Amino acid sequence: MPDKEMDIVIAGGTLVTMSADAEIIENGFVGIKDGLITRTRPNDEKIPAWSAKETIDGSGCIILPGLVNTHTHLPMVCFRGMADDLPLMEWLNNHIFPAEAKHVNKEMVYAGAVLAMAEMILSGTTTFCDAYFFESAVAEAALACGMRAVAAQGFADFATPDNPKYEKMMAAADRFVNRWKSFAPMITPAFFCHSPYTCSPKTLVNVKTAAREAGILYLTHLLENQDEIKTIEKRYGKNPVRHLYDLGVLDDWSIAVHCNWLTKEDMEILADTGVGVSHNPESSMKLAAGIAPVAEMLRRGINVGLGTDGCASNNDLDMFREMDSAAKIHKVISLNPTLMSAQTVLQMATIGGARLLNLDNMIGSIEEGKRADIIMIDVNQPHLTPLYNCHSQLVYAARGADVKTSIINGKIVMNNRKLLTIDLPKAMETVNRIAEKIISQ
Amino acid sequence: MPDKEMDIVIAGGTLVTMSADAEIIENGFVGIKDGLITRTRPNDEKIPAWSAKETIDGSGCIILPGLVNTHTHLPMVCFRGMADDLPLMEWLNNHIFPAEAKHVNKEMVYAGAVLAMAEMILSGTTTFCDAYFFESAVAEAALACGMRAVAAQGFADFATPDNPKYEKMMAAADRFVNRWKSFAPMITPAFFCHSPYTCSPKTLVNVKTAAREAGILYLTHLLENQDEIKTIEKRYGKNPVRHLYDLGVLDDWSIAVHCNWLTKEDMEILADTGVGVSHNPESSMKLAAGIAPVAEMLRRGINVGLGTDGCASNNDLDMFREMDSAAKIHKVISLNPTLMSAQTVLQMATIGGARLLNLDNMIGSIEEGKRADIIMIDVNQPHLTPLYNCHSQLVYAARGADVKTSIINGKIVMNNRKLLTIDLPKAMETVNRIAEKIISQ
Repeated sequence: MPDKEMDIVIAGGTLVTMSADAEIIENGFVGIKDGLITRTRPNDEKIPAWSAKETIDGSGCIILPGLVNTHTHLPMVCFRGMADDLPLMEWLNNHIFPAEAKHVNKEMVYAGAVLAMAEMILSGTTTFCDAYFFESAVAEAALACGMRAVAAQGFADFATPDNPKYEKMMAAADRFVNRWKSFAPMITPAFFCHSPYTCSPKTLVNVKTAAREAGILYLTHLLENQDEIKTIEKRYGKNPVRHLYDLGVLDDWSIAVHCNWLTKEDMEILADTGVGVSHNPESSMKLAAGIAPVAEMLRRGINVGLGTDGCASNNDLDMFREMDSAAKIHKVISLNPTLMSAQTVLQMATIGGARLLNLDNMIGSIEEGKRADIIMIDVNQPHLTPLYNCHSQLVYAARGADVKTSIINGKIVMNNRKLLTIDLPKAMETVNRIAEKIISQ
Repeated sequence: MPDKEMDIVIAGGTLVTMSADAEIIENGFVGIKDGLITRTRPNDEKIPAWSAKETIDGSGCIILPGLVNTHTHLPMVCFRGMADDLPLMEWLNNHIFPAEAKHVNKEMVYAGAVLAMAEMILSGTTTFCDAYFFESAVAEAALACGMRAVAAQGFADFATPDNPKYEKMMAAADRFVNRWKSFAPMITPAFFCHSPYTCSPKTLVNVKTAAREAGILYLTHLLENQDEIKTIEKRYGKNPVRHLYDLGVLDDWSIAVHCNWLTKEDMEILADTGVGVSHNPESSMKLAAGIAPVAEMLRRGINVGLGTDGCASNNDLDMFREMDSAAKIHKVISLNPTLMSAQTVLQMATIGGARLLNLDNMIGSIEEGKRADIIMIDVNQPHLTPLYNCHSQLVYAARGADVKTSIINGKIVMNNRKLLTIDLPKAMETVNRIAEKIISQ
């Protein structure tokens, strides 16, 4: 008689647990029941009798916690590659903002989000934090695709596609939270103020107040590029971090995205208030926005997660590429090859991202009691041979396409590269039709 | 009666020709006969009757010239991920050099090269320029795998694994050229002086003289990091470029690899003498070596090709990742998002690399009369949807794993991701056995 019937067992493979002690278990065993990890241990230790509805052979694989993408604008996959290599303001004002004004609607957001989730699952992401308009459609898509999401409804003082009337903004915010607050652990609602330069002090404060009342995360772009500093200093007589601090919107339920131009004083404020940072190196490289001082932030104890940003500025959602870039860019900028080790970067992409999103009690590592968000990377491939060091191989050589199987909340969403929750041809066709409209206008 | 019997026809797909006028042909047609491209045109134009031994359906694909990796040390795949995130001198002196002294032999070079070629073919490279010891074994592997190679025998003044006696160096060089000079167009022999700091003026000059006599390329690492400048200035009272110029070894059959710390005067010398440059951004980022002023070099008319460097310092041979990094790193370093457009980078990875290797009359673009080195990228995938701009998609979103089929010199070496010239399980097993020895010592 088995001591426990499992839903899924992964037997064999190398468990890179990302636990606090960085435990790596060769020939591992993971038991999953009711969406939770119930056992992790070496496969050859005496394991009490068990049975499982499904047993997955992990041999030849690295078993890793699912990757956490802490900043996306998923529906922007519809604009992927539409306008590249342009000056920032020309890109925004002549291409992205007009395309958004014309084409962003609920259907586009849902269709883009589904395609984006296909791409994310196929490249190892199991949890994302998205910020856009019509965010309910993103949350609906996440439920349909079986992905774990922090869905942040966007706010700005210009007329947004989903909320043209500013006066009704806070009522819409209330409705958004009420709709999604009971969908834990798969959906976590949050608020996203676009930036200190597109949101007035009133909006920044009102949205933060509502976020505090609802007990949810509050996100904002911050210090993406140098122009922002000039704009805010001219408008408010202080730099953007000080501006937000004086408004009282910074605390440990606030996430600042980018932070490419932090001063030491800014970092002190972030560290003191407990604000976390989402680092999006590839987007900032491509837009020539700047490079966040991540090594110094980590040294000061600031939570930093990794993110891809939207596909208009990256142009993909592959967290493996993002890890590779994160590990390399800080080294060359500082001319110090010891910065941002593979292990540090892998932490940022897993448990660090989970901590940033306040989900680290639930995900981010393979440990008993956590939700079963697990990916399996096929290491039996030429570009992953030989294998001396798992952390190094995952960051510097593995690619999204090497993820073979993905489990989210104890459900297999991809097996042997086949998506089980998404009709991929339909998802691509729907976005291609949207793209045809975008081109023709 | 067909006007011509082709060996292979690719019908359909988007031809990104990389011709001088950047022609892109929708619904294209490529005819291949005796290793050569005999026809390229739109598929729906009136094509004279033809027959082909093999017809490949190109629909849903971008058809691109095979990528040219202008700098590799292929056998170093055996050291992939062995030692990362370390200070440069510790990495070299405590890890790489001792491992090379112990483990580099003809068998290791051949086995590493075959595994590396599997990785390269699977990620779209069709031509490479390799520089290592026992380089004949790399050339033999290239012949066996059906890859096009510039094989550069390495020279240095320390005892190299394959040529411990300095006195016999030039005789060995002669033998190397004589062995390989008749293997065009698949193998092109070349010489590689490791660097100005590991090669004496006498070696630099002797090897260049022999290269000139043989009419072959002469490569050297140059200005990879700042220490080299100090070393050479201390030793010779001038900077490394001036040092090589004064020795008379710089001309349009010389390739300088890295060039991260070129001054304006250095660039003038390279432009005046016709020296080309191999740019290896990912390796230089990871080693924190520096970033070459590539946009400025291109503006001055210097030939620049793209390369991955060896797998101890990258850690992969994927030219798609290299293109992505090349397009992004210069933008952020210069805070100018218009630098290094996708098209510029794609040129560097194809026709530019071919030009650097003096092979542009033969490869680097899909044009009638050139050798048929062609790759097909499957764009019918979520991360490549929608498709507004081929250049942008190839550089910023495509991955090596998206290459479906690869043709080198008119022979199909990979079809539907299956390697046809390499026994992949055996290649991985052989390198894994070498890695076990490396670990155990």
